[in-house]
Amino acid sequence: LRVTMESLDYCDPGFTPLVVLELTSETKEEAIGWLLRRIRDLQQNGGAELLVEQLGPGVGAQEKENPNMFLVGASQQRLLSGAEDVGLFKECSDGSMRAFTCTNKHKFKDFKDSFLSMAECQYIIKHELDTLRARDETHVPGYTEVKLYPGKSIIRRLQSKGILIQLFPLHEKEELKRLSFSWYKKVKLSFQPLDDIRHYYGEGQAFYFGFLEYFTFALVPMALIGVPYYLFDWEGYDKYVVFAMFNLIWCTVILELWKRYSASLAYHWGTLSRKKAFEEPRPGFHGVLGFNPVTGREEPIYPNAKRQLRIYLVSVPFVLLCLYLSLYVMMIYFQMEAWALSVHDDEPTFWAGILIFIPSIIYAVVIEIMNLIYRYAAEFLTEWENHRLESSYQNHLVLKVLVFNFFNCFASLFYIAFVMQDMVLLRQSLATLLITSQILNQFMEACLPYWLQRRRNKKMINRVRKRRTLEDKELPLVEQVRLEADMSMYLGTFDDYLEQFLLFGYVSLFSCVYPLAAVLVVLNNFTEVYSDAFKMCRVFKRPFSDPAANIGVWQLAFEAMSVIAVVTNFALIGISPQVKAYFSDSETQLILWTVAIEHVLLAFKFLLAFLIPDIPKHIQIRLSRLEFESLEALKKKVEQSAENLTYFLK
Amino acid sequence: LRVTMESLDYCDPGFTPLVVLELTSETKEEAIGWLLRRIRDLQQNGGAELLVEQLGPGVGAQEKENPNMFLVGASQQRLLSGAEDVGLFKECSDGSMRAFTCTNKHKFKDFKDSFLSMAECQYIIKHELDTLRARDETHVPGYTEVKLYPGKSIIRRLQSKGILIQLFPLHEKEELKRLSFSWYKKVKLSFQPLDDIRHYYGEGQAFYFGFLEYFTFALVPMALIGVPYYLFDWEGYDKYVVFAMFNLIWCTVILELWKRYSASLAYHWGTLSRKKAFEEPRPGFHGVLGFNPVTGREEPIYPNAKRQLRIYLVSVPFVLLCLYLSLYVMMIYFQMEAWALSVHDDEPTFWAGILIFIPSIIYAVVIEIMNLIYRYAAEFLTEWENHRLESSYQNHLVLKVLVFNFFNCFASLFYIAFVMQDMVLLRQSLATLLITSQILNQFMEACLPYWLQRRRNKKMINRVRKRRTLEDKELPLVEQVRLEADMSMYLGTFDDYLEQFLLFGYVSLFSCVYPLAAVLVVLNNFTEVYSDAFKMCRVFKRPFSDPAANIGVWQLAFEAMSVIAVVTNFALIGISPQVKAYFSDSETQLILWTVAIEHVLLAFKFLLAFLIPDIPKHIQIRLSRLEFESLEALKKKVEQSAENLTYFLK
Repeated sequence: LRVTMESLDYCDPGFTPLVVLELTSETKEEAIGWLLRRIRDLQQNGGAELLVEQLGPGVGAQEKENPNMFLVGASQQRLLSGAEDVGLFKECSDGSMRAFTCTNKHKFKDFKDSFLSMAECQYIIKHELDTLRARDETHVPGYTEVKLYPGKSIIRRLQSKGILIQLFPLHEKEELKRLSFSWYKKVKLSFQPLDDIRHYYGEGQAFYFGFLEYFTFALVPMALIGVPYYLFDWEGYDKYVVFAMFNLIWCTVILELWKRYSASLAYHWGTLSRKKAFEEPRPGFHGVLGFNPVTGREEPIYPNAKRQLRIYLVSVPFVLLCLYLSLYVMMIYFQMEAWALSVHDDEPTFWAGILIFIPSIIYAVVIEIMNLIYRYAAEFLTEWENHRLESSYQNHLVLKVLVFNFFNCFASLFYIAFVMQDMVLLRQSLATLLITSQILNQFMEACLPYWLQRRRNKKMINRVRKRRTLEDKELPLVEQVRLEADMSMYLGTFDDYLEQFLLFGYVSLFSCVYPLAAVLVVLNNFTEVYSDAFKMCRVFKRPFSDPAANIGVWQLAFEAMSVIAVVTNFALIGISPQVKAYFSDSETQLILWTVAIEHVLLAFKFLLAFLIPDIPKHIQIRLSRLEFESLEALKKKVEQSAENLTYFLK
Repeated sequence: LRVTMESLDYCDPGFTPLVVLELTSETKEEAIGWLLRRIRDLQQNGGAELLVEQLGPGVGAQEKENPNMFLVGASQQRLLSGAEDVGLFKECSDGSMRAFTCTNKHKFKDFKDSFLSMAECQYIIKHELDTLRARDETHVPGYTEVKLYPGKSIIRRLQSKGILIQLFPLHEKEELKRLSFSWYKKVKLSFQPLDDIRHYYGEGQAFYFGFLEYFTFALVPMALIGVPYYLFDWEGYDKYVVFAMFNLIWCTVILELWKRYSASLAYHWGTLSRKKAFEEPRPGFHGVLGFNPVTGREEPIYPNAKRQLRIYLVSVPFVLLCLYLSLYVMMIYFQMEAWALSVHDDEPTFWAGILIFIPSIIYAVVIEIMNLIYRYAAEFLTEWENHRLESSYQNHLVLKVLVFNFFNCFASLFYIAFVMQDMVLLRQSLATLLITSQILNQFMEACLPYWLQRRRNKKMINRVRKRRTLEDKELPLVEQVRLEADMSMYLGTFDDYLEQFLLFGYVSLFSCVYPLAAVLVVLNNFTEVYSDAFKMCRVFKRPFSDPAANIGVWQLAFEAMSVIAVVTNFALIGISPQVKAYFSDSETQLILWTVAIEHVLLAFKFLLAFLIPDIPKHIQIRLSRLEFESLEALKKKVEQSAENLTYFLK
């Protein structure tokens, strides 16, 4: 029965293209033929059972156009069975979230044609392509050097050998227009349409925007309290301590509450209790062929001990060396600046006046270069560590980049604060850094790429116009696909989170010196939402949705920052002249008190984080109910199946 | 088929008594009859389907003997289906641990008569009795005031109303003899027979003894390093720091490694991934009748917010008040001692010499009284907080008692260390406290109860001998049961863990002042193993096994202690005269360095705890494999069942 239905579907003329697959223009014909055959083949023959069509030539077909672009789609039936494969959770008619199964499909809410969102369909197709495995092929036809072995993911191998250039999901213009309208096109005071964002871009993106919004609103109380501190110059030691204590408790509380909010988002988006399918090894992963101890499938095996050795003996020392270098460069900068100042003080000529700015400029340039080199080095090292999973690769990369960026951004501030103990300079540097980095960021992030993209778009549209006289600007599908293929690749939420992390650092680390920081960050984030949304909708290729259940390693990073903030704030309070004046008779007393209060607050912080449950009660109850039901069902199932058997045997 | 087999079993003459159930001697006949009927009734009629027999009168039957003692057992078949109910994990033929199911019983290793250990059988019977629920009874027959409602656990209600006095599992004399021989009867250098302990007493007990042994061995390196420090009086600031750093890293590492070791023990004992059945409300739990949101069963509901209010508004302030009182008493003690000393110094007469000891004696007595009162108060408060689950009740009780005991034990030492800054006195007090508490403990814990028990046993044996002339000391079953019913109840591992916790405190908090502490603790624990084992085997009633997967809240308590230890040790180093001499020119520098090193070490400690995975790799792989298999099975199951149906419909 099933076979007939699917073979009917197979010839379905209403083929909706979902994903674009681009091979190099020099790909050999036999390899293409083989790949398409394998993608179209029935699942029982080891194929992916997807629909795939070659993209026709564009209107202004030029010679440089790549002919090897393919559109991939699937029948409704295939998508549903794929949804079961990837373990998608959907809402049932009773409001609970359950793993979707084809047999129970009518129990799910709104089970009809648009049951699966386009992003989900694209994710399913990506998963099915990724798990399309070689059978008895020893190499890709036409390429004897591109080896295959039974069970190896074909797409990953083509990707790692550069035959497959890219694989990306298509935009849906109508939906995108609607989304962008409700998201950023109207100036409004309402919240972002998180559910729509998730619907169009998937959970990973939606979590970033959810976090951005949550974080911005959470900073509002800090900003409001910071304003009077700034305006009235409240600087007694008691006011300092009160402000610092409020900030610290607030930081802890908002991070804990975010966990709860994120858990309830993840529950409603069906990713909280979704069991991830076992991840394929990432494309670059290599090793001796062996058997995966979990799945029993043949795949490259790389000993964990070797990876640990590489991490601890090479990567960690390298990162430490880079941090040392960064500090060293900073010290040279401070020396140069002191020298330039002294020259200027000795002889305040015009050239000496210019000389003052030279160290800052050199330092800024050197820092940018170091950041760039370090980023490449970190990527190289993390690649060389040979992580099996993409997620583990990402985590190690994030950690490396995070630590270095933290140092580069904050080392000079720490130096000014604790070695030079110059609070006025600290406040100045902080304000300058915060404001310039915000302006630069928004420009580099959204305006520049948009402008480049716009130029490219115009060229394409003009080219199309030259041939046809289109009245509306609506592009035909072929052109649309080629246009999107030319768009820049969206590189994930990494840089966006990193920016928020550094902003959080400015707010939390030095909040008692510069209470206005929170205000600036809040203002920045209000525009950040718009520029990020704009970037997502207009500048980049659509990314594949990523079924995240939380913000991952960033939660940890923000929590670590809030611990460092406690220490820094109390050290700042300890060295502030107001507090020093209060404890003028005994410096020892001052330090002991500062340290004691800091310890108590740290303990309190950890206690608070421990006492606030990570998952809200009502979500917890629903999860337990699901677990209880599955346990009960298991008990019944055994009895039932025995009964059934008896019934049939009669 | 099933019914016939079980009705056969029911009349089985080879009934093995497993659990004893004692009702008050005044219980009304109709209540007894009803209870026995409900216990014996078939499961499909809502009974427990267990075997139960009244215990006959003893040989020396006296009037004061309680006639209402019942022996409970079960057929093999019933025990197996019960094992499935409680979600028991057993080893399969392929070496993996899986949840036992009757249908797959032949896949399990050594599936034969002794497949379930006696402890497991007893646990199953306890579970089945606990989940024996009222149907349409509105009250216990004969007791209109003992209300019931559909779904209420009958045994729990009888327990909370005092009609059921006790429910305890029987010892198995042969097995006990073998266990005690391999455990403590021979002096040996081998490890404890943890698997046998687990087999006889269950996982909770085995974890305690496993922890005791692990902890003792883990302290050996600290003890070995402590000896030269003690002998050669190494007291430079560098040596202090080295010793403290070793200790801190060691403490962190052993606690992390224990987690790994405990995970692999739990895996092999089948409790690591065992899903706990939903816990019944504890006997004392009360509330308005409602529906449990998870199970949908009718049961008392008590709003969580109300409980939180009771905890934060009453219990927490009460505990804080008690801590304050304890500090206050301590201060009075120090004042009294100072006064006594001054009196003695003024006039060193005989009476003044005696007066010196008075404050210590009074303080010791007051502390004991406070401990006792506090324990009652803590139990009362935790009861009053009305926790739904026994586990949650236990956790709150442990936390309350822990904090108070920590204060009582260590407050005076902290006072001596940091307020009086008298290192000689600190060392003396520490040694005295450690040695006397150890001796006292071992005496109170094992010797005294044993001596009392022995007297009781002798009386019983003599009485039996008077009637019959038994050649061997083997007692008949009836006497055995009555003897065990008279034994003291084993109150759980609480006090044993508490003792280890306090010992760990002595070692880790003040290790740099008194490096010999670890040696004393190691020596103590070598005998502790013997006395605890002896106590378990000879002094107390056999406890029901408790399927623990780790040492629970104690892991947290030990970890918290090791964090406090970092802070204390660095404070001790900071105030030590040797270090002060080194930084003689600037006290500020000294404190700043101490604090800085402390922060770095704390950060390192947390990093270490984060980097060491909690579950060993090979266990992790097995767990993932199980999960992967169940996912794959689920996929197949759907297809299979569809196929089956088609097959039968043909």
